[in-house]
Amino acid sequence: MTDSYIEQLIKTVAKLPSLGTRSARRIVLYLLKKRANIIPQLIKSLQDVYDNIKVCEVCGNYDTQSPCSICCSCNRENNVLCVIQDISDLWALERGGLYKGKYHILGGVLSAIEGITPDDLNIDKMLSRIDEEEITEIILALPATVDGQITMHYISSLLKDKNIKVSTLAQGIPVGGELDYLDDGTIKLALDMRKQL
Amino acid sequence: MTDSYIEQLIKTVAKLPSLGTRSARRIVLYLLKKRANIIPQLIKSLQDVYDNIKVCEVCGNYDTQSPCSICCSCNRENNVLCVIQDISDLWALERGGLYKGKYHILGGVLSAIEGITPDDLNIDKMLSRIDEEEITEIILALPATVDGQITMHYISSLLKDKNIKVSTLAQGIPVGGELDYLDDGTIKLALDMRKQL
Repeated sequence: MTDSYIEQLIKTVAKLPSLGTRSARRIVLYLLKKRANIIPQLIKSLQDVYDNIKVCEVCGNYDTQSPCSICCSCNRENNVLCVIQDISDLWALERGGLYKGKYHILGGVLSAIEGITPDDLNIDKMLSRIDEEEITEIILALPATVDGQITMHYISSLLKDKNIKVSTLAQGIPVGGELDYLDDGTIKLALDMRKQL
Repeated sequence: MTDSYIEQLIKTVAKLPSLGTRSARRIVLYLLKKRANIIPQLIKSLQDVYDNIKVCEVCGNYDTQSPCSICCSCNRENNVLCVIQDISDLWALERGGLYKGKYHILGGVLSAIEGITPDDLNIDKMLSRIDEEEITEIILALPATVDGQITMHYISSLLKDKNIKVSTLAQGIPVGGELDYLDDGTIKLALDMRKQL
């Protein structure tokens, strides 16, 4: 059908998340049409990332250096640690620019269905960081899913004996949220946790 | 926020069709996680396409050779020409494997809104091919949009004086289509063009 080089590229692109064969075909056609501009640029960006980006040995972030620029920064609070599931969560928190402490990336959450146990997560490293870096506050910014909440309870049970402030993100109605469009679980939770004015 | 190499790659990926910043971030994160396997493979595929794929000077197809393998093939009917809008249409027809003639890619359709005139399309080349290659049948496989149909009428008016069979794809209810989900235009057309059993 199409030439094998093109077909190979379509197959590779189709493996990427949120893409299928049809959108991969569209992307490859676009690349072919604009190839003089976009293909060398894409190759260079991919090569730069491949050559330069490493995993931070302290928190698990991606950066050109290890420890990463967040772990090395002297402008951030050294005693607060935000525990997150994945690097995309770090990016989301950094986009807001509201959090000024350090991060620790677990690399997932406990899951009975997917067979993810505490050994698969970056928990030991977190415990040793708490002692080494004299952490006084832990913010568990894990997803509000069942697995995320189980992981949160597991970690907070590990921290019970240490003299640390442990908190989790507030749950309720999101900013701009209309009751009509929210699920029953969120509405029940927002009612239960209602604030006195 | 994120490292500038990563950010650059996200920006480049976000420019691709059917992707935005959010899906680009997901893709880049996936690439970072699986980079040992997938980044070199992706770079190689892109480089192969960039180095080897050219535009066929006869029909406008993409191939490693020009004229392309379809134009050069001796297993295809030489006298039938299927006129299409874009290479994605050629891929769609070839996937079915039902058409055995040659192709001619217009590179678009006439559009008053987008300012696409007959000079912008690959029409002159088509007319010269008809004479040179002794084409006896033209199939206008253009989209069933207003612009596609205008282009079809324009081309068929150009071919009026030549002694060629000109046809267009049948329109009606698609295979598996339920009346309930079809637009009024399609139902009206299918009624008007109803077939005697």
